[in-house]
Amino acid sequence: MKHILIIGIGTGNPEHLTIQAINAMNAADAIFLPVKGAGKEELAEIRRDICERYITRPGVSISEFKVPQRQTTERTYAQSVDAWHGEIARIYEALISGLPDESRGAFLVWGDPSLYDSTIRIIERVRQAAGLDFDYSVIPGITSIQALAASHKIPVNLVGKPIEITTGRRLAQDGLQAATTVVMLDGEQAFAKIDDPDAEIFWGAYLGTEDEIVRSGRLGDIAADIVTLRAEARRRHGWIMDIYLLRKGRDFEE
Amino acid sequence: MKHILIIGIGTGNPEHLTIQAINAMNAADAIFLPVKGAGKEELAEIRRDICERYITRPGVSISEFKVPQRQTTERTYAQSVDAWHGEIARIYEALISGLPDESRGAFLVWGDPSLYDSTIRIIERVRQAAGLDFDYSVIPGITSIQALAASHKIPVNLVGKPIEITTGRRLAQDGLQAATTVVMLDGEQAFAKIDDPDAEIFWGAYLGTEDEIVRSGRLGDIAADIVTLRAEARRRHGWIMDIYLLRKGRDFEE
Repeated sequence: MKHILIIGIGTGNPEHLTIQAINAMNAADAIFLPVKGAGKEELAEIRRDICERYITRPGVSISEFKVPQRQTTERTYAQSVDAWHGEIARIYEALISGLPDESRGAFLVWGDPSLYDSTIRIIERVRQAAGLDFDYSVIPGITSIQALAASHKIPVNLVGKPIEITTGRRLAQDGLQAATTVVMLDGEQAFAKIDDPDAEIFWGAYLGTEDEIVRSGRLGDIAADIVTLRAEARRRHGWIMDIYLLRKGRDFEE
Repeated sequence: MKHILIIGIGTGNPEHLTIQAINAMNAADAIFLPVKGAGKEELAEIRRDICERYITRPGVSISEFKVPQRQTTERTYAQSVDAWHGEIARIYEALISGLPDESRGAFLVWGDPSLYDSTIRIIERVRQAAGLDFDYSVIPGITSIQALAASHKIPVNLVGKPIEITTGRRLAQDGLQAATTVVMLDGEQAFAKIDDPDAEIFWGAYLGTEDEIVRSGRLGDIAADIVTLRAEARRRHGWIMDIYLLRKGRDFEE
């Protein structure tokens, strides 16, 4: 049977790679690299560097495939994601169909395949829908949450307190609920609209890469600065990936 | 100045180690391994194996220190943790004091130092309280949440939905709130008392190790089986580390 490896590669620092990920890359016959188009060329370059640095077994082929854009017009969020996954599933199906029998193909995933990434979900969709006979396994990778916490040298949770991981869209809608809220995928800087000036923010962009920027402080003091800094960085790079953690309260408060 | 490295080592699979962690271990002059006493000997053994496998630079010293037990009598949870951290801080202070000037000491942390671990918090306490002059850095590691999701081959979040990470204590108190709830540190099997039989549970113990056990299904169908299985495994090993994820709903529900 064909086997697909879904491999987490961390957030841009090639040293985030685990031994398990490196071994999996070298166990693959074919590695499929996504290319996400304009402005994301740096990310594709990091993936190529990782392959070059760690693949030591001769005969591993590396090929690139284009990832389509999500179409949002006249669709709800869920509909647009569902349709987009359908398009990607057809690409994956073609890639997997093209693999020789008994061979192994690998997808490299930014961060960890289990966290706000849909590779597992789409591979499962291909497996269930298509008449393709293959199985797959998942190799974890360092997430941007961990890179953020490591750079700020903070625990994510307060002692014994819960953590919420959510999206900018949800934060804007629900406000700040948990003692610790980690916000991913926030294109609208929802933190700047939260009316909780005494909360602390720990923000980071391009985490793990040479261009990493981090800022932390009282939300009321630095929210506006981060919005400006983020806009400037985004203009300079042509793209941005950022994440932040909001914290209310302190350790050992009952 | 002395430098302390707080290094995440993953959850028992030596292949969880990142290149960054391996390089940090080899950059250390002294590595401090915690020994947690009766029943935790296997964990100490895994840490020793990791050192043996990956430390290639001659001259890295490895020493073990005993971790005290947390005293809970006549104390609230926060008080007992605070006092316990105080005791550990005195041990860390002695270890760091014993390091030669300009040298590097390393603590190896199960999972990731930022997630339900207090090494960062205690090191910061030592730095602020003692007259010791040192700085420190944090190296992320694969967490049991990621190992759980990888073994079950599932995304942690539903599409666009939030994740709550909490403790057994909190789950028992607050019930099931989020679409995805990940429960760590649950010594009382709070999942079995949740009145939400249609929720799905993805459970795992000894994740990453050769003794890994995973189970998944409808909570109402398998909660009792997991309780029995867990008790048996705990008896057999003398200890258990387990974690689970509870999920309500499906992808693409609006």
